[in-house]
Amino acid sequence: MLGIEGLSRLDMQLLLDMADEAVEVSRQVEKKKTTLRGRTQVNLFFEPSTRTQSSFEIAGKRLGADVMNMSVGSSSVKKGETLIDTAITLNAMRPDIIIVRHHQAGAVKLLAQKVECSVVNAGDGAHEHPTQALLDALTIRRRRGRIEGLVVAICGDILHSRVARSNIILLQALGARVRCIGPSTLLPAGIAGLGVEVFTSMREGLAGADIIMMLRLQRERMNGSFVPSVKEYFRFFGLDEEKLSYAKPDALVMHPGPMNRGVEIASDVADGAQSLIREQVEMGVAVRMAVLEALARHLPNS
Amino acid sequence: MLGIEGLSRLDMQLLLDMADEAVEVSRQVEKKKTTLRGRTQVNLFFEPSTRTQSSFEIAGKRLGADVMNMSVGSSSVKKGETLIDTAITLNAMRPDIIIVRHHQAGAVKLLAQKVECSVVNAGDGAHEHPTQALLDALTIRRRRGRIEGLVVAICGDILHSRVARSNIILLQALGARVRCIGPSTLLPAGIAGLGVEVFTSMREGLAGADIIMMLRLQRERMNGSFVPSVKEYFRFFGLDEEKLSYAKPDALVMHPGPMNRGVEIASDVADGAQSLIREQVEMGVAVRMAVLEALARHLPNS
Amino acid sequence: MLGIEGLSRLDMQLLLDMADEAVEVSRQVEKKKTTLRGRTQVNLFFEPSTRTQSSFEIAGKRLGADVMNMSVGSSSVKKGETLIDTAITLNAMRPDIIIVRHHQAGAVKLLAQKVECSVVNAGDGAHEHPTQALLDALTIRRRRGRIEGLVVAICGDILHSRVARSNIILLQALGARVRCIGPSTLLPAGIAGLGVEVFTSMREGLAGADIIMMLRLQRERMNGSFVPSVKEYFRFFGLDEEKLSYAKPDALVMHPGPMNRGVEIASDVADGAQSLIREQVEMGVAVRMAVLEALARHLPNS
Repeated sequence: MLGIEGLSRLDMQLLLDMADEAVEVSRQVEKKKTTLRGRTQVNLFFEPSTRTQSSFEIAGKRLGADVMNMSVGSSSVKKGETLIDTAITLNAMRPDIIIVRHHQAGAVKLLAQKVECSVVNAGDGAHEHPTQALLDALTIRRRRGRIEGLVVAICGDILHSRVARSNIILLQALGARVRCIGPSTLLPAGIAGLGVEVFTSMREGLAGADIIMMLRLQRERMNGSFVPSVKEYFRFFGLDEEKLSYAKPDALVMHPGPMNRGVEIASDVADGAQSLIREQVEMGVAVRMAVLEALARHLPNS
Repeated sequence: MLGIEGLSRLDMQLLLDMADEAVEVSRQVEKKKTTLRGRTQVNLFFEPSTRTQSSFEIAGKRLGADVMNMSVGSSSVKKGETLIDTAITLNAMRPDIIIVRHHQAGAVKLLAQKVECSVVNAGDGAHEHPTQALLDALTIRRRRGRIEGLVVAICGDILHSRVARSNIILLQALGARVRCIGPSTLLPAGIAGLGVEVFTSMREGLAGADIIMMLRLQRERMNGSFVPSVKEYFRFFGLDEEKLSYAKPDALVMHPGPMNRGVEIASDVADGAQSLIREQVEMGVAVRMAVLEALARHLPNS
Repeated sequence: MLGIEGLSRLDMQLLLDMADEAVEVSRQVEKKKTTLRGRTQVNLFFEPSTRTQSSFEIAGKRLGADVMNMSVGSSSVKKGETLIDTAITLNAMRPDIIIVRHHQAGAVKLLAQKVECSVVNAGDGAHEHPTQALLDALTIRRRRGRIEGLVVAICGDILHSRVARSNIILLQALGARVRCIGPSTLLPAGIAGLGVEVFTSMREGLAGADIIMMLRLQRERMNGSFVPSVKEYFRFFGLDEEKLSYAKPDALVMHPGPMNRGVEIASDVADGAQSLIREQVEMGVAVRMAVLEALARHLPNS
C-alpha cells in the first residue's frame, strides 16, 4: 500500500466499505478483533508523528496484532546503518506488516522492494500519504453520502503536501471535482497536469465549494528559501469566517492536523459547526484497521 | 480521577481494598486479568517518569488492556499543537482511559474537560498526584493495619511537591495527624490552612512520629530562585540515623522516589530495616490496577 | 543468563535445540505461543539498539509475554537515580524477566544481584553479549550441520567487542578452532590466553577459515585514543572479495550488525552469496525465544 496511485476505483470503494465496518468496532466497549492475532506489525517512523503513529498502533492492537514501534531516535540509524540495511534486518525478523514514514519521497517504495511482507506508506516526503486521503474520503462519504460530484477545494501549502497529492488522486478517481488554492510560491509546478483547477485567490477558489481542506503550513520544510510571514499568510490564505462564507453555505471544513491555529485556520472555524476535524481522526483509526485487514487477507498462507 | 480532593472517605477505602486484592494478582505466576480486555489505555506523559509510567503500563497490561505510550518528545507538541488539540485528537481515537502527567497544575483537569473517557492524573505540576498518595496510604495500612491515629511527618521540599499535597488530603481524611517539616523557604504559604502542624526543625517535627515521608529535593523546579546547597540541606533536613532516632523507635521511612541519596536521605536509612521504600513501588502497581478497575466499572456500556 | 561463561556445553546445545524449534514459530502465519502468558518482560536498555531490543521485544510478544520497554532517555536515570535504585524499583513491580543492555562491563551482573527475577544480558560494555553468540552458533550449525572442527576467524575491532568475547567462549566450547585477526591496537592484551590463535594479517589469519565473522569498527568507543582512518582500515582489514578469497572457497561471512559498509566490510561481500548476515537476524529472534522459554521453566512456581 504505497500510495493511492495504483489503486483501482474498486479497491478504494472496498477499503472505504471495510472502514465503515471498522468504525463500529472502535465504538464498542470491547474494541477487539482477532483478525491479526499472532501477526507482527512494525511501525517504523523516521519522522515523528503523534497522530499517524498512534492511529496505526491503536488500529493494529484492536485487530489483535503484536505491534512494535521503532522510531529513529533510538535506532541504529544513528550508528550509520542505511535504510536498506534497516529494511533487510527488519524483514529477517519476519514481521507481517511494516508501516513506514520517511522524510524522503520514494523511500517507502525502496524499502518495500527489500522486504517480503506488506508495507504501508504512512507518508513519504512530499509524495503520498494514502491512509490520510482514505480517511478524508471516508469522512466526506459518511457525512455527505457520496463523493461523486462534490467540489473539493484543497488550500494552502500544496507544494510540501503529500496529503494534497494523495487526495487529488483519490477524490478525482471517486468523481469529485478538485481545486487547489494557494500562493503561487506554494503551488508545485505542473499541478494543473493532475487535472485540478488552480487558484491563487481564496475568494475565487472557494466559490461553490462543498468541502474545504486546509493544509498545515509546513515551515519546517522550507529550508532557507521562501518562508511566508505568518501574519500575512493568515490574512490571504488562513480560513476564517469571512473566507468560509465564500464557499457553499453548508460547506464542510477539514484539516489533517496538527493545526497551526491562527496560521492556516482560525480557531473559531476549526472548532465550529462546519468542522469535520474531529471526525477525521476517528475515521483515521477505522481506515487503518481496514487497510491492515485488507493486507492480512493477502498475507502468505492466510 | 483528577485528585484526592473530591474523593469521599468511602471511595478512598474502597480503592485501598481493591488494591489489596490487586497485590495478589502481581504475586502470581500468571499475572493476568481480563477486566480491561479490548479497552485502550493511553499513557500521555508530558514529563518523563520511569516509575509512574512503568507502573501504569504494567498495571494496564496485567488487566488485559491495550496500552499505548505517548511521550512528548516524539509527539506533535513539537509541531506547535496545543494541549487541547492533543486531547481532542486522542479522544477521537476512542480510548477508554487516559493517564496524564503534565508539568502545569490544572493541565490534567483542562484535558479531562475535553475528552469523553476516564482520565487519571499522574501528577500535574505542584498540584496533585493522587495514585502516589493512595499507594503511600496502602503501604502504611498494610504494615500498620490502620491509618487512623498515626502521626505522619512529611519532610523536605513541600513547596514543589504534589505528593505532599495529595498525601495531606488523603491521610487526614483517613484519620492520620499530619505534620510538615522543612526549611521555611520550601514550605508553601498557607500550608497551615490545610490543617497540618508545621515545623522547621526535624528534631521537633519528628518527635513521636509513626511515619516519616521524605520528599525529593526538586532542584530542577527551582529556577533561579533559592537553591539550597546540597551539603547544608542534608545537614539540616536529610534523614540520617541520628534524625531518625528523634521519631518513635518503630517509625517507618518512606520516599516516593527517585531518591537523591545523600541529599534528602542517607543511604543506610533508605536501605535500612525501617524503610518501606520497596514496598511503596509494589503497592504502586496494585493501586493503579485498582484505579483502572474502578474506572472501568463506570465506563459507558460496561 | 549473564554470559556464555558459566553455561555448560549441555546448556548451550539445549538452547540451540530449542531455538531450532522456535525458528518454526516465526515462520508460521500465526506466530504465537502462550508460554509466557501473564508474564512481564522488561527491556531495560541503557544503550540504544534497534536490532537487539526489537529482537527481544518480538521474541517476548510471540511467546505471549507483556513486554515493556524502558530506555534511558525517558527514564529517571536523568534525575540522578542509580543503577541499583533502578533495579530495586523495577524488581518491586514484580517482572518475570529483565533484559538489560548497559555500557559498562559488569553492570548487568550487579543489577541481577539486586532483583529476584531472571535477568538476560543483552550486552554489557566490552564484556559479553551471550544471545549474539548463541545466534551466531545457531546460524553456523544450521548451515553447516555442526560447529565442531570448524575454523572460525573473528576479524577487526576485537578490543571493544563483547560479541567477540562471547563467541570465543561459546564456539570453543562447541569444538570450533577460533582465530582472532585485527590490528595490534585493536587486540586486547591477553587475548591469546583465551586459547585462540592471533593474527595481525588477514591473509594469514583467513587461510583455511570456514567461517569469517566481521566485527563493527566501534569508533564511538575510541574516546580520544587511537582512531584508525576509515580508508586505511578498510584497505588492511575490510573484507572485500580479494581478502575473502584467502579463506576456504565455501567460507561463510557473518556480521553482528549494524554494518559500516566500506569500513569493515565491502557491500558486495555483505550482500553476496557467501553472506549469512540475514540469517543471523532471523536466528536472533529464535535464540531469544529459546532463552526466554528456558528461563520461564525456571521461574518460581512454574
